[in-house]
Amino acid sequence: MNSESDFILDIKSKYSLNFVGDDCAVIPKNSETDMVITADMLVEDVDFRLEWTDPFLLGRKALSVSLSDIAAMGATPTWAMLSIAVTESLWESGFLKVFYEGWHSRVHEYGVTLIGGDISRSPDKLVIDSIVSGDVPSGNALLRSGARPGDLIYVSGALGGAAGGLRLLENGRRSESNAATSESKLIKHQLDPTPQVHLGNYLQKHNLANSAIDISDGFSTALFHICEKSSVGCVVDANSLPIDPDLMESFTLEEALDLAMNGGEDFQLLFTVPREKEDLLDLLDTQNLTKVGVIAHPEDGIKLLNEGRSVDMIPKGFAHF
Amino acid sequence: MNSESDFILDIKSKYSLNFVGDDCAVIPKNSETDMVITADMLVEDVDFRLEWTDPFLLGRKALSVSLSDIAAMGATPTWAMLSIAVTESLWESGFLKVFYEGWHSRVHEYGVTLIGGDISRSPDKLVIDSIVSGDVPSGNALLRSGARPGDLIYVSGALGGAAGGLRLLENGRRSESNAATSESKLIKHQLDPTPQVHLGNYLQKHNLANSAIDISDGFSTALFHICEKSSVGCVVDANSLPIDPDLMESFTLEEALDLAMNGGEDFQLLFTVPREKEDLLDLLDTQNLTKVGVIAHPEDGIKLLNEGRSVDMIPKGFAHF
Repeated sequence: MNSESDFILDIKSKYSLNFVGDDCAVIPKNSETDMVITADMLVEDVDFRLEWTDPFLLGRKALSVSLSDIAAMGATPTWAMLSIAVTESLWESGFLKVFYEGWHSRVHEYGVTLIGGDISRSPDKLVIDSIVSGDVPSGNALLRSGARPGDLIYVSGALGGAAGGLRLLENGRRSESNAATSESKLIKHQLDPTPQVHLGNYLQKHNLANSAIDISDGFSTALFHICEKSSVGCVVDANSLPIDPDLMESFTLEEALDLAMNGGEDFQLLFTVPREKEDLLDLLDTQNLTKVGVIAHPEDGIKLLNEGRSVDMIPKGFAHF
Repeated sequence: MNSESDFILDIKSKYSLNFVGDDCAVIPKNSETDMVITADMLVEDVDFRLEWTDPFLLGRKALSVSLSDIAAMGATPTWAMLSIAVTESLWESGFLKVFYEGWHSRVHEYGVTLIGGDISRSPDKLVIDSIVSGDVPSGNALLRSGARPGDLIYVSGALGGAAGGLRLLENGRRSESNAATSESKLIKHQLDPTPQVHLGNYLQKHNLANSAIDISDGFSTALFHICEKSSVGCVVDANSLPIDPDLMESFTLEEALDLAMNGGEDFQLLFTVPREKEDLLDLLDTQNLTKVGVIAHPEDGIKLLNEGRSVDMIPKGFAHF
């Protein structure tokens, strides 16, 4: 069997699935508005571990991961659905009540209405499917396919923190609530990520970005998606990557760079900005943005500048298969 | 912990989830059209067993169960999403390829476009979340809440066949493909149900029904939902129930009546028709409709006439919890 992305390409081509292939599907809603929609399936012991989190944070994260896809399209979240398969013991424990509290705590920040979903029983693992929709002015959704040679490549926030937090959890470290240590902050990035909804919306509204993607499976993989869909190459400067400073206390510089390049679940945005619009980005003074490279012609390949050398970048982000 | 339906009522009230509580959520799309949307989560060894079906039929059924909810709203299916958590061994076996073929074989009959979804890995059980949306003229969706005292209660098709097929499968019987035996037909109802999309659409378009629901969890449970949401009672005549005739070869009359009353997954429609519109139903000569009772005042309760006695009907349909 081939990889996850090959399989999706295969069925996309076989069944002419023209809406598949971006962070969200985009479908016309009315003459002025497009609807974007995404689904994210989270499986216990694959995408999360119950012993590392709690029902409240898991509920928040279930919504956050989908809001991040809405953010990548530059859309405003509108409604959501939640399908859950839950074990008998979790059902009896009242787990779901706290899970929904966590889910709704995110709602208050971003304004989205739960309109439906499903509850099923699961023999042994908790499975969550989070579906979120958003609105965007017709034709204005930020796609992966809009990057052009010469565009500047930006990322929001810091990279690698969530993957660093995951590594710590895997190594048996736990966070005390509200602790301000570096370890606790990394673990918080993993368990309670913040979707960049306001940034995505701002970029779309002011027509600043011509392509965008959320960094859910790692920076290198996200950048590959942009280059593939836009049919372009790129050059990224490793020294410019905004490595999460909290990584430095628990990891070597080499490990930190790897986490920032290939670690998933930061849920920051990667986007491209036409050079003539760069100055306008400064107006966004509340956002923490970093220029990390430039889009090139396809024949230039996908390159990383590191220690004075230009090497082919390899997408090493997360894939289920 | 309380029951599934109590839990949903609780969170519906706690978070003011006004879109929750019918076969589909109904949200405005534009000035002329409402969008309806449903999600159905199917879990291996709870909602289906891989040894009883095959990937093609499972793909068809995953779409059919959601199309049935669209049918109950009287809507026309438009787009769908499919989230799947699949085990490593199923992934390697090429299971998904045939599953999507089955899913798409249903598409050709009802016209719906797959716009997205998600693929995740599952440690041991296959989990499918099927999301389908449809369009209906604004304000015209068939709700559970529209029944009024005096309305006639109708069901489409025959009842109990799918539950009879499930009972046979549980008892070790298997179907040979294309066999025309009663057993094979019952098993086919269970593994490859037909959603009543055209009927629902017709009832809506011609304004014939004032309430509707699909019979996914059993006739008695469906009727209770209608009575609860419409704040009415009803009287159903047990002798008039369209018991699937194929049940008679494998089950006693008493068992067959129980399967028809409380067995799930027939995916027929239960709907109410104002008395003055009854004659118009005859125009639907291609549909197999049966009048089974009449809507009463709430103080009359929910009654079953059987062997000359009127008894309280108990909803004994399927619930996960």
